[in-house]
Amino acid sequence: MTSFTPPVDDMRFLLTQVLDFDGQIATLPGCEDVSAEFAGEVLSEAARFAAEKLAPLNLPGDEQGAALEDGKVTTPEGFPQAYRDFVEAGWVGLSGNPEFGGQGLPRTLQILLDEMVSGANVSFGLFPGLTSGAAEALEHHGSEELKAQWLTGLVTGETCGAMALTEANAGTDLGLLRARAEPVGDGTYKVTGTKIFISSGDQDFGNNIVHLVLARLPDSPAGVKGISMFLVPKFLPAEDGGLGARNTMSVGALEHKMGIHAQPTCVMNYDEAIGWLVGEPGRGLKAMFTMMNNERLFVGIQGLGIAEAAHQKAANYARERLQGRSSDNTRAPVPIIEHADVRKMLLEGRAFLDAGRALAVWTAMQMDIAARHPDPEVRSQANGMVLLMTPVIKAAFTDMGFETAVKAQQVFGGHGYIHEWGMEQFVRDARITQIYEGTNGVQAMDLVGRKLPMENGDLMARFLTLVESDLAAADGSPFAAQLTEALVPLRRITQALVAQKGDVEALGAAATDTLRLVALVSLGWMWVRMVRACEGEDSAIARKTRAVAGYFFARMLPQVHALATQIEAGPETIMTMDAELF
Amino acid sequence: MTSFTPPVDDMRFLLTQVLDFDGQIATLPGCEDVSAEFAGEVLSEAARFAAEKLAPLNLPGDEQGAALEDGKVTTPEGFPQAYRDFVEAGWVGLSGNPEFGGQGLPRTLQILLDEMVSGANVSFGLFPGLTSGAAEALEHHGSEELKAQWLTGLVTGETCGAMALTEANAGTDLGLLRARAEPVGDGTYKVTGTKIFISSGDQDFGNNIVHLVLARLPDSPAGVKGISMFLVPKFLPAEDGGLGARNTMSVGALEHKMGIHAQPTCVMNYDEAIGWLVGEPGRGLKAMFTMMNNERLFVGIQGLGIAEAAHQKAANYARERLQGRSSDNTRAPVPIIEHADVRKMLLEGRAFLDAGRALAVWTAMQMDIAARHPDPEVRSQANGMVLLMTPVIKAAFTDMGFETAVKAQQVFGGHGYIHEWGMEQFVRDARITQIYEGTNGVQAMDLVGRKLPMENGDLMARFLTLVESDLAAADGSPFAAQLTEALVPLRRITQALVAQKGDVEALGAAATDTLRLVALVSLGWMWVRMVRACEGEDSAIARKTRAVAGYFFARMLPQVHALATQIEAGPETIMTMDAELF
Repeated sequence: MTSFTPPVDDMRFLLTQVLDFDGQIATLPGCEDVSAEFAGEVLSEAARFAAEKLAPLNLPGDEQGAALEDGKVTTPEGFPQAYRDFVEAGWVGLSGNPEFGGQGLPRTLQILLDEMVSGANVSFGLFPGLTSGAAEALEHHGSEELKAQWLTGLVTGETCGAMALTEANAGTDLGLLRARAEPVGDGTYKVTGTKIFISSGDQDFGNNIVHLVLARLPDSPAGVKGISMFLVPKFLPAEDGGLGARNTMSVGALEHKMGIHAQPTCVMNYDEAIGWLVGEPGRGLKAMFTMMNNERLFVGIQGLGIAEAAHQKAANYARERLQGRSSDNTRAPVPIIEHADVRKMLLEGRAFLDAGRALAVWTAMQMDIAARHPDPEVRSQANGMVLLMTPVIKAAFTDMGFETAVKAQQVFGGHGYIHEWGMEQFVRDARITQIYEGTNGVQAMDLVGRKLPMENGDLMARFLTLVESDLAAADGSPFAAQLTEALVPLRRITQALVAQKGDVEALGAAATDTLRLVALVSLGWMWVRMVRACEGEDSAIARKTRAVAGYFFARMLPQVHALATQIEAGPETIMTMDAELF
Repeated sequence: MTSFTPPVDDMRFLLTQVLDFDGQIATLPGCEDVSAEFAGEVLSEAARFAAEKLAPLNLPGDEQGAALEDGKVTTPEGFPQAYRDFVEAGWVGLSGNPEFGGQGLPRTLQILLDEMVSGANVSFGLFPGLTSGAAEALEHHGSEELKAQWLTGLVTGETCGAMALTEANAGTDLGLLRARAEPVGDGTYKVTGTKIFISSGDQDFGNNIVHLVLARLPDSPAGVKGISMFLVPKFLPAEDGGLGARNTMSVGALEHKMGIHAQPTCVMNYDEAIGWLVGEPGRGLKAMFTMMNNERLFVGIQGLGIAEAAHQKAANYARERLQGRSSDNTRAPVPIIEHADVRKMLLEGRAFLDAGRALAVWTAMQMDIAARHPDPEVRSQANGMVLLMTPVIKAAFTDMGFETAVKAQQVFGGHGYIHEWGMEQFVRDARITQIYEGTNGVQAMDLVGRKLPMENGDLMARFLTLVESDLAAADGSPFAAQLTEALVPLRRITQALVAQKGDVEALGAAATDTLRLVALVSLGWMWVRMVRACEGEDSAIARKTRAVAGYFFARMLPQVHALATQIEAGPETIMTMDAELF
């Protein structure tokens, strides 16, 4: 019941036929050897690892859960070995800097690896995910000395990483955090405080764990400007480079969570733990944000990956489960996939999944271009697209991912509610992706308050120009005509929101629905491109693409117009009611 | 953190100002002593019981869970005593037949009691809920002898009830069930088979439990026509009327569920267990359906009740949790209920809850009229409305209830994912309501396939006439104007679906979206009535009603038009894709 087949053929289709990996990415400096064909081989290897080594640990991992006894964290059976195998196979460092032991492969492959790992075992995926994030923050902000000491370990995954931001009273509003750091005088700091919700805060893999901790230096100003970042390792470095003395940090408790039970989410106590300053004093939040954009894309991909796994199981079940009569009343019982309502639930998921994956790959390609293209203008333009898409992918993919998991569970009827069938775990696991790394409400505010005003308010217009050029190329397609119509309200709303910059109430009232609208248009864009890419073909993927696109345009894109009406109703009906009346 | 305040003031507002309880219900035969004022007193008592005795057991009940050891089921600490107190206070028999020990109060009060109990502790509420259901089935279909033997126990709750329908291979499609019953020759039967998902199948309350089991008599035809209903008690009756020998039925296992952990959902083995035939041979499914309509309304109310409880906690939290800056940038940190996006999540919930409760009360009043009105024509008309609203309330209230619980959890940010805060339990518990008593997909098919064609296809038209008369009375209100517009597509779609009767694909493709559309229109109807009922008033309820109605019409009703577009796209995009491509 735990079988999961990463959709490698769909991924290859995107790279070769839809998004021109060879033309866009294999031509970038440092990617000369990375053809779409080679990428496909890498993905097949990754798929094998995910399906054979990670997926089988998912359900038992949920049952056993991570545990804390006598101050020691243990992960479920099989996790330590799986992590060591994952490191050894080079997967942690797939897109890492080769200077520090990484393989230097494009983000485009990383994001597809991340989807597979998340689909197979999202609790496991947080270990390498946070490790790569810590590596990236250190690479961008750490001193040469710190990088020499720690970076190879993090890039390869020999050392694990964790991010320690949240405190009980400082969640979305990190400016309220209280952890403090006192300079020792020898270049180190003593970090003291309690952090909550620390994913991968500890484990039993036998290696070191580097925490990037946000804390305040003495006499630092209140709010976010007083926050600095510190590298605080579980084991201090020994003279020989190995594991030295245990640092004075400990796991106070494991959080009791709705899901991701195999993942040790820690309450961490730092008690004058020795740390090193990363980056400049007072710039800790900025340093953390470098990494947080990637983490947000990663979380969006978790939403997609869990949804793909849940969807696959539901589709398999629907092909096998016999209930009810055929629509022509001649056969009974029939596989429930013959029933319209079951098909509809599955199509809704598939319509998100395939176009969502395409959008994620396109965004990752923009990241590769932004990182590697020789022309700084091209780099900057690509980076703008990444900034625009980051909140959309984080929030919309996790919302739609959760919805897809819920629908997939529904396909199982009563069995969906029973643990052993594995579906309820997907729903519980998916739920966290809408919350962590900035709740989806925070993402929506990021989109309308920070991203839309960028480039003098023209960032979205530039995105829509890209969309329109593909619509022009697909001229005559009814899908393209329908999407062209959907651009009208999006453009109008974007202009209004840019003009309302600083009006927090107007932006807040519009935020969530606007993000959904942008997501629907972006998915529609990918459907137009995918349909065009397989025009005239009769392969399974081509037939699926046309059929699911038909569903998307008939049954999902129309929501754009309701969203526009809702957004344009403005903030009045939201802001007027007294707080005590809610 | 477990505090829950049943919204008695809102309930009184509905009975006295909106829905004319005194004029509609207190005038019915048998209800002469039941004024709205008296009803309010009963509800206040019920609220106290729910808040003080049931709500405090909810979170600990989830943690401890029901258990099975050596064949014996134990419920969490406090449950047996709470059940005995509930029986003693007369709550099980609130609307039960006075001839058999019930209080004979209207359904209208029962449904509000059910909401409170579900909000306080949905796992607990299944014990009396299924008991009342069993009583009702027995009252309608049992022989005089069986009724004399069992009915008083069930009506008062001294005996508990359970329904045993589902088997591993027979869920939605009960025609596939295999349990069998052999006549012994003395009027009893030996019932043999294994049933799954049996809520309240066993417990440790010290009383008898009556299972209504669907099984096949020898030589009965295949399919639903071969199904009969049997009364199978845990303890056979002793000569003195007390508990006699243990029947040969046992709990094979407790299901491991996503939620409602305090509720012992049993796998039941019947091994030549002694039972009595209820109703006629081969009519078991029909007998079960008598009761299932009420159970479906009950489940819809569970969705509403859980959502109300989750919403209350979220609103309280949002008033207390300090994060971020005020919209005019002058104060920080501020209660998050000042932030537009948080308000929006809460308003979405409130817009469903208050109008949903009103619609449920209205429907329950139709049940009372259908049961008690002297004029058979009036009874029949009211019954039509109940039949129409049953699938709508079951499915839409549980879908919106789940969505409300998810949004309420989201208001808590990271804390929402942590067990101790209680929010994730609401989400896990709410999820079952979308699945059991007929999945929401089954409800939607019931609406479009069975209910819309009733009364020569005029049932919905008759409902819309009622709506229109209230819209005419609210003439000049912009809300009424907007709702009038929303009736246009609903009328058109209803006519089309009635014309497509028997076209399973067309109906199946339209079902879910049509049900949502009907629900939105029905909620809008109640908002128009509520706003009108407090016109010119300045009470807290009046101010809340106007504000939330404003939100509903600006931000939720517009979805009607997107739904209409989606429904009218027809079945083509749903039915064409090959099963293996999903």
